[in-house]
This record gives sequence, C-alpha cells and structure tokens, in this order.
Amino acid sequence: MEVLQDQNWTPLGEVGGQYSPSILLLLLLLLYKSHQQGAPAARTSLSVLRRSSASLRRSAAAFLGSPSADAPVSSSMPPSADLGRVLAVITGASRGFGRAVAKDVSRSVRPGSVLVLVARSGPELRALQAELIQSEAGRAGLQVEVVVADVGQKEGLEEVLRRSKRAFTEEITHLVLVNNAASLGDVSHFMKDFTNMAEVDSYLSLNVSSALCLTAGVLQAFPRRPALRRTVVNVTSLCALQPFPSWGLYCTGKAARDMAFRVLAEEEPDLRVLSYSPGPLDTAMQAEARSKTADPNIKQSFSDLFAQGQLLTCEESCSKLMKVLLEDSFTSGAHIDVFDV
Amino acid sequence: MEVLQDQNWTPLGEVGGQYSPSILLLLLLLLYKSHQQGAPAARTSLSVLRRSSASLRRSAAAFLGSPSADAPVSSSMPPSADLGRVLAVITGASRGFGRAVAKDVSRSVRPGSVLVLVARSGPELRALQAELIQSEAGRAGLQVEVVVADVGQKEGLEEVLRRSKRAFTEEITHLVLVNNAASLGDVSHFMKDFTNMAEVDSYLSLNVSSALCLTAGVLQAFPRRPALRRTVVNVTSLCALQPFPSWGLYCTGKAARDMAFRVLAEEEPDLRVLSYSPGPLDTAMQAEARSKTADPNIKQSFSDLFAQGQLLTCEESCSKLMKVLLEDSFTSGAHIDVFDV
Repeated sequence: MEVLQDQNWTPLGEVGGQYSPSILLLLLLLLYKSHQQGAPAARTSLSVLRRSSASLRRSAAAFLGSPSADAPVSSSMPPSADLGRVLAVITGASRGFGRAVAKDVSRSVRPGSVLVLVARSGPELRALQAELIQSEAGRAGLQVEVVVADVGQKEGLEEVLRRSKRAFTEEITHLVLVNNAASLGDVSHFMKDFTNMAEVDSYLSLNVSSALCLTAGVLQAFPRRPALRRTVVNVTSLCALQPFPSWGLYCTGKAARDMAFRVLAEEEPDLRVLSYSPGPLDTAMQAEARSKTADPNIKQSFSDLFAQGQLLTCEESCSKLMKVLLEDSFTSGAHIDVFDV
Repeated sequence: MEVLQDQNWTPLGEVGGQYSPSILLLLLLLLYKSHQQGAPAARTSLSVLRRSSASLRRSAAAFLGSPSADAPVSSSMPPSADLGRVLAVITGASRGFGRAVAKDVSRSVRPGSVLVLVARSGPELRALQAELIQSEAGRAGLQVEVVVADVGQKEGLEEVLRRSKRAFTEEITHLVLVNNAASLGDVSHFMKDFTNMAEVDSYLSLNVSSALCLTAGVLQAFPRRPALRRTVVNVTSLCALQPFPSWGLYCTGKAARDMAFRVLAEEEPDLRVLSYSPGPLDTAMQAEARSKTADPNIKQSFSDLFAQGQLLTCEESCSKLMKVLLEDSFTSGAHIDVFDV
C-alpha cells in the first residue's frame, strides 16, 4: 500500500497510462467507494487514496463483494416481512438486473399483488412471466402482466401507463416503480467524438426523458392518497457521481437522472425516492463494456474484475436493494450503493 | 441562529411550507454555499445548518456579494495579464452573462484575437459587435464575428464551426470556448407534471446535447498541438449540485453538463475544463424565475434576493470568471462557484 502515499498520483484515465492493471483495479475500486465520503469532484478521489488502510481494506472487501463486519450498513431497523399488496412496474425486466428485481419483488409481496413487467424483448419477457406464474407467489395469486414496449418511445410509455392503470385494484397498498431500463451508450468513443446531436439526443431521450416521463405518468395515474404508499426506484450507477473516461454518455445520463430524482424527492415528501447503484454486475452490459470501452485502462480494469470473479451477480445486488426497500429507512432522494448496504 | 440547532429541520421546499421568507433566504443561501463542503446529497445541506456561526457569517457575506476577508480564494497565484492571442467562441452572447463574458474577454486578449459571438437574436448581437469594434480593443485590431444561429439545431452548430474555422489564424495561441447558451425550462411545473417526452427531449437537446456536440466539434476543428492552449468553459449553476423544487429540468440539465465536462477533463489532460457557476444574477432568466417558479418558497426567496438588491450583476460575476481564467490554476473539470473565487 506504499504506493498510496505517493503524492504524484494523477487521475484515473491519464493518457499514456503508466499503471499496472492491479493498481488500476485498486483505483477503480477506490473510485467505486469514494462517493461514500461525499466526494463530488474527480480530484477528491485522490484524497481517498490517502485514507487509512483500515478504511481501504473495508472498501476493498466491500468492492469485492465480501463486506467485512465493520462495513457500513444503511440502518439497524428490522426490515418488514414484505412490501405489502403491491403494484410494481419494472422496466428493462426481461434480463439482467431488471429480471432479478422482478423475481425478488415477486417473493416479497402479499397475495393480490400485480407485477407489470416492461421490456422490448417479447420472448424473454413471456418466459419470465411463465416462470413467475408457476412460482410459489404465482400459485398464491400473484398477477404478472407483460408489456412489450420501448419506453424510449411515447407510445411505449402510454401503453405501460394504460396497462398499469388497468391492473390496479383498490386492494393495492403499495405502488412501486423501478426505472431500470437503460443503455450503455457508445463507450468506444470519447467526449470529443460526439459531434452528432441526433446520437446524443437519442441517448438522453431513452436514458433520461423516458424515466422522468414514465415516473411523472405513474405518479399522475396513482396520485397521493392515505392508504397508498408510493416508492420510485432509479437504477443508477457510480457513474452518476464519478467521471469515467469513454463512458461519457452513460455518466452524463446517470448524473442527470440522479439529480432529477433528487428534485422529485424534494417536491413530493410523501413519496419514497431511491437511487440505487447495483455495482459492477455480471451482465450483458458489462460484457459490452469489456469489449468496447475505448479507454485502455478502464477496459483492462473491467476485464480484470471479470477474470478475477469480482463482478456481482444480479441476484446478490438485488438482495441488497430488497433489504433497503423492506427496511424503508433510507433518506428519500439518496443515492445508495450496493456496497453501502 | 438558534433555529439552526433545531434537529427537526426538513429539506427546503417541503410541501405546506412552514418557513418565513427570511429563513428560506438563509436556507437558500446555505444551499448555495454547501457544495463548497463537498456535499453531494440533499440531506447533507442540513448538516451545513449546524456549522459554526463564523462559517455561517462567512457564507452569508459571500452569498450577499460582499466576501469577508477570510472568504475562500481559489489561489494566490498572480494572474496573467491577458489570455493571449485568442479565438473565443461564446454562445448566448447577445445578452446577460454571455454578453458580459464577450466584453470582458475582449479586454483581456492581445491584438490579432478573434471573438466568435453566437446567439439567436441578430439585432442584439450586432449591437454588441458594433460596440466591441468601437472599443479600445476593437481599435487595436480585435476581430468580432457574429453568428446568428440556434445552437440547439444541427445547422446552427455547423455554422458556428464553419465560421470559427474561417476565423482561425496561425497566430492564435489560445482557443477559448464558453458554453453559455441555456434555457431555464418550465419552472411553473413540478417533476410529476413532465409527462411529455418531446418537451423533456427538447430541453435536454438545447441544454445538454448542443453544448457537448459544439464542444466536440470545436475540439476536432482545433486539435491538440504544442503552441495552442485550449480552454472550455461550461457555464453551470448551483442547480448542478443541489436539487431545487420546481427547477427540475434546469437542475437535471446542469447536473448532466457538469458530469459531461468532468468526463471530458479526465479524457483530455491537455485541455483546461472549467464549470463556472456565476451565482444568482440580475438577468432576464432571474425575472422569469421570480414570476413563474411553482414552488412558493423558492419563488419568495428569489423575490427577496431581488427586492433586497442581493442579486449579482453579470459584470461582477464575470470579473470572477476572468480572474479564474487568467490565474489558470483551477483543477480541470472542477465546478467553481462565483463565491469560491
């Protein structure tokens, strides 16, 4: 850890990279943890390098998916046994993290609940629907609706709202919206390459506008009332807080979303708003990141995470999200990382 | 200040507001300063309320435009006398802060420099051009180009790039791009009202995509080379760091831009990237904010700032920006507030 005392460290991604993959992995790890210290600027991540080794070990353990006993926990509140009688709308539900969320939610709700699962891919979505209907929850009366739609299109959003309203019953006690659908953007380029407004517009529309407008539509469709809890989850990323070279669109979109949901939390005090960062997951998006990331150092770090078995499974991360939702003690609007839980 | 010890304080903008205008003004003031403490989450602003009264007084003095002797300064570096022989592209240059930037830059450059001033309003832009050509700098050979264009449109961006390339000469030693053009968005509504994707798309296109694509285009047009300094300014806001009720689009766009320019700074180490927050300015945008802001508490706070003469003039704020640019000691990618300088 001697290298951490070196005053000459420069930010991750410095051109003409001079770092070994293992040091970059550590840097990435520290970037991944540094937002816990409330570090808003890139330079702040460097100060994290100079923290105590105990803190570093805790960060490392947490990052590697094996939180130590003294890792921070969000709360000591005993979690509720379930989320109640839920109407849950989950976007990007056909695979990856969204699929894990759908399955975990199905196991945490009371009979009479409804899942509205949204994705572009019909076959995968219907396979999940069949699986859930045949599960214990399904046999106990869980209703599973699928909406094959592109939430990046106006018509897709309208269809999700229409189907959600139709699925709602007076017995529902908890509305849950999980804004999970997202795309990585072109990570094979740097910011200076993005001269095509249509490409940037399209990315922001799918990754920012659609999440905001779906959320607004759902809140209008199911307004505040005494017997209805309402929870909105924004699936976010460390990239909302820390810049990563060649992940420009992704960072920009996630930062925009985090802020939008912070404003929402300020505006709607009855609403529970959570920005949950699921960590580095072993998903198709990560595979895309490993093969396409332009920045050689970032690319190598992701490859190392994968090769060393340090990516989280969607199920591992999702169980932490469920813990946070069941405890329900988070500050509305907060960004909570899987390693915070 | 006793009220600051109260543990029951809730975030600014709580529905059913219970705060007096003066307390809200203080809250707004503290929100305005709290990012100096590196506070990323809304809840963190509350901890600022519990800081020492000395710190509070300093914050208050700084917010009110009368920095005390112990106010933080960005650096003790002696500033350069000028920016060099500059090609400066300034968007939103016809009025407000952009106009002040154009005038200040014109006074800080060497003969042979060129300003490329961009705005949608032809008459105002041409009036500024005439004024600058007749100024001391103009008489000493400053060239002033005007581009009447909408940078929110592809064609507008292309025209700016075409004219900038034409204006460039081999004698230019410093390329400066000031991304100032922006719109407030509809502050008469809350996040839950934004169900129209076209409206959100359009806002993000003008306020995020256009700044990113113009920057990319300028960097491609004038690539890195030994004899050319390159500086990119993102005109930002406290709203990039702190959520303000009913300023959802504005906060979202500014947060997106700050992150995009942080990524750019990581990717291009030779580039100087500055996100400068000019503070609460006495401009048309502020007048719009005073008359239209939906949140009654925020609206009242802005009215109070205006009524009490506490808004900054564009010239006051711009002189701080020029100080930062001339000193050139900021961390690339940093968000620097007028009250940090």
